[in-house]
Amino acid sequence: MIETMQWVRPEEIEARSMAIIESEMPKGNWTPGELAVVKRCIHTAADFDYAENLYFSDGAVELAVNLMKSGNGFTIVTDTNMALAGVNKAALKQLNGTVRCFMADPDVAAEAKERGVTRAIVSMERAAKLDGPVIFAIGNAPTALIRLYEMMQKGEIHPDFIIGTPVGFVNVVESKELICQSDVPCIVARGRKGGSNIAAAVCNALMYQVTRA
Amino acid sequence: MIETMQWVRPEEIEARSMAIIESEMPKGNWTPGELAVVKRCIHTAADFDYAENLYFSDGAVELAVNLMKSGNGFTIVTDTNMALAGVNKAALKQLNGTVRCFMADPDVAAEAKERGVTRAIVSMERAAKLDGPVIFAIGNAPTALIRLYEMMQKGEIHPDFIIGTPVGFVNVVESKELICQSDVPCIVARGRKGGSNIAAAVCNALMYQVTRA
Repeated sequence: MIETMQWVRPEEIEARSMAIIESEMPKGNWTPGELAVVKRCIHTAADFDYAENLYFSDGAVELAVNLMKSGNGFTIVTDTNMALAGVNKAALKQLNGTVRCFMADPDVAAEAKERGVTRAIVSMERAAKLDGPVIFAIGNAPTALIRLYEMMQKGEIHPDFIIGTPVGFVNVVESKELICQSDVPCIVARGRKGGSNIAAAVCNALMYQVTRA
Repeated sequence: MIETMQWVRPEEIEARSMAIIESEMPKGNWTPGELAVVKRCIHTAADFDYAENLYFSDGAVELAVNLMKSGNGFTIVTDTNMALAGVNKAALKQLNGTVRCFMADPDVAAEAKERGVTRAIVSMERAAKLDGPVIFAIGNAPTALIRLYEMMQKGEIHPDFIIGTPVGFVNVVESKELICQSDVPCIVARGRKGGSNIAAAVCNALMYQVTRA
């Protein structure tokens, strides 16, 4: 078995993987920027469903890339420490960006318990108070997207961009459709699939369009 | 849209999700412990392929659970900080376990670059020097599994357990088959699919069999 494997230099593994993905995926009407996002999601999960389920609002990729390359900085807010861990820190640093997650803060947990709501809801309320451009990268909690939507409707929050990729079976599909129907620029994995890894993959695919260009 | 969603108490979301998964998944010959692992992987990715691709060596789940509940402690070694972030820290603490990842250590990166190998290879060599029971949870790098296998063959390492769930397109399938064919107790996601999230999900599914029992 070990003898049948190909020796591939570490720096070539990703390029070779992307070539395999491109050869096996269906053709679509994506812009080059959208295609890069689709391919990186497929790469992250080895799941070609991401060629079917990713929704891009009009001009979303271009808008996010322009925001990221402005040099003025931006904050990515995630709803899990796992997504935070998956965001490429070298790319982030190069772009003067930061990444935050409020989910594990003790006071967030305490407030959520007292109010009988998810920590994700309280985390979004914390994020609403951040200064500067904010990109939400929500890969886990549908309640985070629902709370964002409610606050947007009331004018309490104005996200610059939403990456909506919660995964699961309860209110997940619906929470993502809310974001698709909003007027905030967004990239959403429709349906049940997604995850923290997918949220991070979308962030990285956007950043790499600047840092690897 | 928002009106059509069900209000579900936070603590009920997982139970309801698991019930949906169980109602939609195929029937299999899993032990109760294996079934819990399968369901948690499906839950993590909303992907029913994990009902087909998970390989359990004989008695693997029971062995891991016994190791975890011994109270003597154990170390989970991951190959990404993302998997590390996904391992439930409360369960780990309750079981006197720790989780380590060497991938982001500056000296690991330096040595990998000098030798022209992946950081995952150097990380496995670092992990080989750890004391006490070690559970490898490898969700990303096939080279980590290949290096583990080579060291096992030479008697340089004796893992207590391997969770092998790298995802991808280059040498991934083969690296996981190596572990299936070894004599180390293991849980492996065969085929291309897997990921850091799946590696963490398997760890958590095993720990919960003690902490939530």
